[in-house]
Formats: sequence, C-alpha cells, structure tokens
Amino acid sequence: MKPPPNHDDGPDSPRSVGWTHARTLRLADADRPLPLEIGGSIAPVDVEFETYGRLNEARDNAILICHALSGDAHVAGWDAEAESRGRTWRVRKPGWWDDVVGPGKAIDTDQYFVVCSNVLGSCYGTTGPGSIDPSTGRPYGLAFPMVTVSDWVQLQARLLDALGIDRLHAVVGGSLGGQQAIEWALAYPERVGRCVVLAASARLSAQGLGFNAVARHAIMHDPDFRDGDYYEHRPPQDGLAAARMLAHITYLSGKGMDIKFGRRIQDGAQARSGFDIEFQVESYLDYQGRAFVERFDANSYLYITRAMDYYDAAARWGDGDLVKACARIRAHVLVVSFSSDWLYPPDECREFAMALMRNRIPVSYLKVESDYGHDAFLVETATVERLLRGFITTAPPDTAVQRCARQGGCRC
Amino acid sequence: MKPPPNHDDGPDSPRSVGWTHARTLRLADADRPLPLEIGGSIAPVDVEFETYGRLNEARDNAILICHALSGDAHVAGWDAEAESRGRTWRVRKPGWWDDVVGPGKAIDTDQYFVVCSNVLGSCYGTTGPGSIDPSTGRPYGLAFPMVTVSDWVQLQARLLDALGIDRLHAVVGGSLGGQQAIEWALAYPERVGRCVVLAASARLSAQGLGFNAVARHAIMHDPDFRDGDYYEHRPPQDGLAAARMLAHITYLSGKGMDIKFGRRIQDGAQARSGFDIEFQVESYLDYQGRAFVERFDANSYLYITRAMDYYDAAARWGDGDLVKACARIRAHVLVVSFSSDWLYPPDECREFAMALMRNRIPVSYLKVESDYGHDAFLVETATVERLLRGFITTAPPDTAVQRCARQGGCRC
Repeated sequence: MKPPPNHDDGPDSPRSVGWTHARTLRLADADRPLPLEIGGSIAPVDVEFETYGRLNEARDNAILICHALSGDAHVAGWDAEAESRGRTWRVRKPGWWDDVVGPGKAIDTDQYFVVCSNVLGSCYGTTGPGSIDPSTGRPYGLAFPMVTVSDWVQLQARLLDALGIDRLHAVVGGSLGGQQAIEWALAYPERVGRCVVLAASARLSAQGLGFNAVARHAIMHDPDFRDGDYYEHRPPQDGLAAARMLAHITYLSGKGMDIKFGRRIQDGAQARSGFDIEFQVESYLDYQGRAFVERFDANSYLYITRAMDYYDAAARWGDGDLVKACARIRAHVLVVSFSSDWLYPPDECREFAMALMRNRIPVSYLKVESDYGHDAFLVETATVERLLRGFITTAPPDTAVQRCARQGGCRC
Repeated sequence: MKPPPNHDDGPDSPRSVGWTHARTLRLADADRPLPLEIGGSIAPVDVEFETYGRLNEARDNAILICHALSGDAHVAGWDAEAESRGRTWRVRKPGWWDDVVGPGKAIDTDQYFVVCSNVLGSCYGTTGPGSIDPSTGRPYGLAFPMVTVSDWVQLQARLLDALGIDRLHAVVGGSLGGQQAIEWALAYPERVGRCVVLAASARLSAQGLGFNAVARHAIMHDPDFRDGDYYEHRPPQDGLAAARMLAHITYLSGKGMDIKFGRRIQDGAQARSGFDIEFQVESYLDYQGRAFVERFDANSYLYITRAMDYYDAAARWGDGDLVKACARIRAHVLVVSFSSDWLYPPDECREFAMALMRNRIPVSYLKVESDYGHDAFLVETATVERLLRGFITTAPPDTAVQRCARQGGCRC
C-alpha cells in the first residue's frame, strides 16, 4: 500500500500527518441513548473519528473539522487500514483536506489538536442505516430514524466530552460541514472560540431542495432499492450513480465546466455516434457516478441529503429570524463564499454574516473570486489556506469583552 | 370538451385562433427518403403540423415557429381532436404559445400565415422512435437513426415546399426552437427574412451537456427501458420522470424558485417526516414528472436531447468559427436572452449576436431582466410580445441593400 510516488505529501513527508488510524467510540448506549431533534432517540451509537496533533495541557488547542455530504473522518494523511478495511479508494489518496491540515499547514497539526468524526447516518464507521438495528438484528434501512445537523453536533459534543475537550479553539467546515459549524456556534456558544464557515449558508435554497429531491427520486425508484432493505442484495447503484452525477454538476460552475470540458470529445469516442459516452463531460460524470457507488451507501445518501434539506438555523434558534437566532453566538466567525458557487451562493452565505453583524458579533465575510463553483472550498487551496491561517492563529477572543472593545457597543 | 370557462382566449374569443385541426403530410418516402446529417436516410417520414391564418397571394407572409424539446405543433388555439386522439392534457389548455400567437397578438394570425411542425424523432404525430420501422414492422426504438437540428430544418423546408412557401417572412423559436431558427438562417439564407432567437445560443454549454447526460442516464438505467424496446410493455416512467424533474430545475432560476416555493411546506404534508414529499418544491417537481410521463415518449426524449447536445452552428457552418459561420446569414436577426436563464445564459446568446455584428449583419440583441430563468421566454409574455411585434412588423428587409445602408459598410 503505497501513495502515488510523486505525491507532495506522502506519509513520510514532514508536511503530512502520516499514517492514520481511525478510532471508534460508543457515545450512546441503552443507558444513555442519543435524543434526536425530530423525535425519539437512538442507541447504540458508535462514532468513527480521527485526530491529529496533540491536545495541550490546557486542553484549549482543539479544532473540530466537520465533513460534508459524502465526506468522512479521514481528513488528512494516509489511512493505514484502507486495504484491511476494504476502503480501497483511500489507498492512493490522502484524506479529503490534506492540503489544508498537517504539520505547518493552515490548520497546523504541530500547534492544534484536530478532530473530525463521521456523522450519524453516514457509512464510514459511525452508526447509520447500514448498521444493525438492535430491535431486529438486521440493518436499519429506512427504519433508521431521521437525523439532523443538530443531532450531529450534539454527538460531536459527546465526542469532545469523551476526549476531555471543553472548549474548541475553532470549529471549521465547508458546505454541509459549514452548516455544522454554524450549528456549533449556535448550540454551544460557550464552547466555540472561532467558527469558520466555507461555502455554506444558514439554510438550503429551493433550488438545492429540488436537486436533492431529484437525487432521492432516482435512488428510491431504482428497483434495487427495495424500500431501503437491500443490504443482502445488489444495492441501488444506478439510482445512486445518477444522484452523484447530478450532484457533481452542482459542485462545478458553468464557466468552470466550459473550461474543464467544453464540448470536447472523449479520447477514443466516436463523435455523434448515439447515446454512448462521447463528450468529456459525460465521461467525467459517468466516472464520478461509478466511483461513488463503490464507496457510498444509498440509504446514507437519503438521510444526509434530508438533514441538509432540513437544516434551518433561523427556524431552529430564532423563530424564523436569523438575526434573532444569531444573538446567542459567542464565537468569532469567518464566512467565506465563492463567486461561482450556485449551491450555496455568495448572497446566501453573506446573509449569515449580515445577521452576525447586526448582532455586533465579530465576523469577517469574504467572497473569493473563483470559477470552481461550490468545489472551490476544496480546490482554491492557496486562498483558503491563507484565510484560515490568519483567522485561526489570531489572538484567541475572550468573547464578550473583546466584542465590546472591537465593536464599540456593549452588550455584555 | 370545453376550455376552462374563465380562460381569456377560449376557442370563441376573437383573440383565439379557435379550434385547431392538425394535418399530416408524408414528406419523405422510399422514392425520396430524407438524407440525414449524421448519415443514412429515413423513409417514410410523416410530419404533423398546424397552420393559422392565411397565406397571402404573394405567398410572402408565412412565419415558421419552431418548438422546443417537449413541444409540439400545437402552438395556439384549442385542439379539436384532443380527446379523440387521446391527448387529454390538451383538453383544458390552449397551445403552448397561445399568449403570443393569434388574431391581433404579437404574431398576428390576421396578418401572417403561421406554420409549426412537430420535429422528427418526437412523439406528437411526426415520425419518431415510436413509429413503425418498415424494415421490421415494429416500432423503431433505438433503431431510429440519430437526427439533428439540421435534419429538422431540412424537413421543415420540405414542408414549406409542399405548402408553396419559398421564403419566410420570419422564423421564430425559443430554446431548442431558437437553435432551429439559427439553423434556418444558416442553412437557407435566401429563404429567411427575419430570424428571432429567444433564450438560445449557437451551442449548448458543458453544463447543459451534463444535465442531458444525467437525464438520459436515468431513462436508460430504468429497467423498464429494455434498450428502448418497451412499446409493448410499461414504459420507463421513473427514469423519464426523473429526467423531467431535473429539466424543470434548469428551466427556473434560483431566485425564481425561492420566490415561487422558498422552503415552504406543501399543504397537508407533515414537516420533517422523512422521505415523502414535504416541501412545495418537491411537490411541484413530482407533479411535473408525473404529468410528463403521461404525454411524452422516453425514446423521443433521448433523441431530442442528443440533437440538442450535437447542435453547434460554428462547427457545422464555420469550421468551428462562429463569425465565419454567420457570414452566410441574410436575415435580420433578433436575439433575446433573459438575465436569469442559466441553461442558455445571456453571455452565450450574446455570442451569436456578436458574431452577426462582426459580419455587419443587422441584429438586435436584448437581455431582458427577469427572475423566471429559461422559462422566461414563455412567461415574460408582455415583453416578448412587444419585442416580437416590433421586430416582425417592421418593413421587410431586402437584405443586402438594407444591410449596406444601415451599417454603412458595403459587402454586397
């Protein structure tokens, strides 16, 4: 199991966190089930997570990273168990944010203790619809309860409790991970020093709801779906592939796709030959669809997209008023949007920043010019690194007083 | 069979073309097959079309309207045979552009002879994949040949020949119909006086190609698809519905969807109950998907979207150079784009207009401010009416001379 020979930060590189070993903790059991936002509770809950760096003695250097829809706890470095656990797609790739997390990188593991856990309902080691339902002894499938961004954050809080971390130096996330960062600042104001929200708003748009609806339609109408009870059969791969193809379009910008693919014909394909793959963009989407079904569970896709649909910070914390909701935030906040992101468009990201400003909460908002669309939060590494480094390493805010001094008005 | 009682332009209204009767002509047969752009030929070809108004003695008042992806020849008025032909969706609705076409309307049937024909490969009366293949005695299915926008235009030219129309007062189309209008101006420069292109560019973007690819993936992976040979069975309704749901998102703008649906819950739905339809936008898309499978053939959807993919005016007429391609155009051209259209974005529509300008061909380009996205060409009726009326009724250009006089430079 070797990384690509020319990869800049192979496991032996001084800039890599090296080989990683995920851990799992049972954070809810029959004695202490996890209450769920929408109703009921769940137990047991096992959570897979990774950590990099060391927690200092003061236990105040922890940074929580929240992953997006199809992400996992493997943020950085090289998964030492990729092969033994059948996660073959990780064998030749480092973690999903390896450019940003590592020794000397923007989220510097020489300085910070970095934690990332896989969300409830996912399929990367944390309890999800593919886990065994203790009441039946069979996989949950659609008997898995509806879970929300708030539930994820609550579970992450339990993880931090278990790790002995009272307060986060920072919580950082992009896309659906950014919504978790928002929810952290709202749900646990006293536990969050800084909050970084990349390419995310306080709620998904109608267009985003629409795309998720089409994705779920494709999955749930795949005859292999069998009402979610497919674990002993072929999974609904065609539906999941269609969902992923569609999602990938929403992650890129129109201009970015024109630059990346244009109307170019795929090598080896015959032009205007019919319905086979012919344009490069078709080949790309087909590849993304095929690769995804090898690594993701269709039921998890349903649950996580629904959590994405349901998240609405204003509804949860402010009776529908985002400004009112944000009054409870004590963190310093950085919101970064990307000019060509149309899944979480700049204006919608800015709305959250504006709601903080109206509460005189210290917030920086930046719109980064980029053709990479929503993907920019993962792709515009140099810019994201610079912004993150600056924001994370500034003197820690001792919230109320600093806010007072910086903003000139006292709400202490 | 009665129109909705309160409809402004019922069949008896003086502003309606009234009851309509489609006609069918055999425009290709074994003696005179239709040669196809990509290769081979097809026969027989029957074409369903409608006409409104009267051809004048000079035979110079004809306007050809070209329909879009899911459109048909029934542009205006009330289909007298909707029930008898099982086209129930037409019973309570006038033709798809009834707002614009009729006595005294922008395309004034008191003044002009309006023609619209259903395209080759469609499912509304013109030969398509659901028609009988004479070589097998069974429906073509995927044995139907690949057809292109150029083939459609060639067939429309045959129709005009049959109707005794040498030269069009104007050709008008929106979306894929707009691409047919472009192709008309290119393929038959001497036959087109005016060309109106609404919400269309000279070729589809990579993003548009991507959406079509996902749509076809959904159809072709529906197990009911049976390689297109489903006419004696249940058609691939789930796949076609998914394709249509997706298409509808691309027809609206993000802002338009926020205004129309926002995150509102559908009446009667329970909030946060799971994977059933819950948000209004989900209900809307679901309805659109269900309604579409009642009226459209999945194979036709494949063929027509592929024709949309393949259309590239620059490649066909200018070795990839749009300016060079447009040198052959003799029509006066009006290009109208809509600010929030992201399927055929304003900049791409403008590219065609610019290519005409660089050839000193009289062209008007307008970007209409609208939140209705691509649908705006059908929805922004007042604006479209005003623009069309002005452009269509101006003194007919006697092309070369006028172009010369208007532009100040002579290329005659």
